[in-house]
Amino acid sequence: MKELLKDQERIDDLQINGLQIIQNPQGFCFGIDAVLLSNFITLKKNAKVVDLGTGTGIIPILLAGKSTTSHITALEIQPEVADMAKRSVLLNQLENRIKIIQMDLKRAVDVLPINSFDVVTSNPPYMHPKGLLNPEAGKSISRHEVKCTLEDVIAAASRLLKHLGKFYMVHRPQRLADIMYYCRKYKLEPKELQFIHPTYKKKPNLLLLECRKAAMPELKIKDPLYVYKETGKYTEEIYQIYGRKLVEEGEENTE
Amino acid sequence: MKELLKDQERIDDLQINGLQIIQNPQGFCFGIDAVLLSNFITLKKNAKVVDLGTGTGIIPILLAGKSTTSHITALEIQPEVADMAKRSVLLNQLENRIKIIQMDLKRAVDVLPINSFDVVTSNPPYMHPKGLLNPEAGKSISRHEVKCTLEDVIAAASRLLKHLGKFYMVHRPQRLADIMYYCRKYKLEPKELQFIHPTYKKKPNLLLLECRKAAMPELKIKDPLYVYKETGKYTEEIYQIYGRKLVEEGEENTE
Repeated sequence: MKELLKDQERIDDLQINGLQIIQNPQGFCFGIDAVLLSNFITLKKNAKVVDLGTGTGIIPILLAGKSTTSHITALEIQPEVADMAKRSVLLNQLENRIKIIQMDLKRAVDVLPINSFDVVTSNPPYMHPKGLLNPEAGKSISRHEVKCTLEDVIAAASRLLKHLGKFYMVHRPQRLADIMYYCRKYKLEPKELQFIHPTYKKKPNLLLLECRKAAMPELKIKDPLYVYKETGKYTEEIYQIYGRKLVEEGEENTE
Repeated sequence: MKELLKDQERIDDLQINGLQIIQNPQGFCFGIDAVLLSNFITLKKNAKVVDLGTGTGIIPILLAGKSTTSHITALEIQPEVADMAKRSVLLNQLENRIKIIQMDLKRAVDVLPINSFDVVTSNPPYMHPKGLLNPEAGKSISRHEVKCTLEDVIAAASRLLKHLGKFYMVHRPQRLADIMYYCRKYKLEPKELQFIHPTYKKKPNLLLLECRKAAMPELKIKDPLYVYKETGKYTEEIYQIYGRKLVEEGEENTE
């Protein structure tokens, strides 16, 4: 396995079907949001899936672990990060099921077939780039809308999906107005929405959304998910979604 | 007081500053949603306010009780209901502060000055009229979008408000995509959003929204409000918002 690792990188165990992922602790590491989104997604057999802005490839790898589909394509703009994702795919021997492409998701429709995918997923950058000190750094590209805006992600998802195809996204509740507006604008009708709160006393800090292309308006809100109990321990729901070790490591992106 | 009452009507005590309201138990009676919305609204001194679809006048009367403003206008399309609201205003001796007008809110801009109000409030009908058995009945007009749609309410609010004026609405979370889309479309930028849940284990069944006309996008989510404790008793927050007697009577519209 070691030959797949570069300097400063490490292999983390995903605690699901023996899956592993390569990450660089100095760069952007996946958080609870990617795991919650993967858990929220349902895939039909042989579903054709695209992940937009895949980062280390965490979502495709988790989706491969929970399904049998062998048609997962994942786009990542940052060459070093896309390369790390490719090596994680090899590490898990998923090269026949997951294809990582290093490219800008705004160009996705030039390369991938339009109106043809069953599912598009994304854990996009959450923040406006306003006031950003170092807009070219890798962490900034993963976290801020430097290379693509929320509208770019939603527009690309809409073009790639087939009629009634599903779009799954994790994002911040503060962007709810933008999310709903752009989804409706690009014909991705919001169908299911779940809010994630740090505790039941606190406002939500993440949301999980399922849209269907060209569907009728009818939004179902799911019961909220709380990450911590009042005691400061993780809730049973979080432990069920992923293993105890991963919970402790993946904590940093919660707030 | 009795001469203000018609057949089948009764006077209910609002438990706030000695305020009362006339209601017909056979018709649409106000619910917890109107009380929560009134509590959510902040009014500056002498604010010019319009309430769209006022029903029995509950929101203007509660706003008069919690502020000193004497510029509250309220529109109601149903003649008998508007008449009941007018008699409630007289009952509370608020005729110099609240003006009830029987008219269709879609015609508001023909009668009221545009771009001039500080605050527009609304507790509009929540439901699509789809499958409605008796679309002309009073309860249906108050609950279903028979006489006006969500878009009509938001469009009217936008025309009436001055630059940076505030729009306050209570509605159902299932309509979140519609609400966000039309608010953005009509330049009412969502600024504060609070979800109301029956208990902390359940999905929200009401939302309170504050928008500002032509403001920059920046949505603040508030901590959630729970109506019941696990024991089935009301939470302290609900008791603080209004008196114990009213909680027990106003319960029917929660779910």
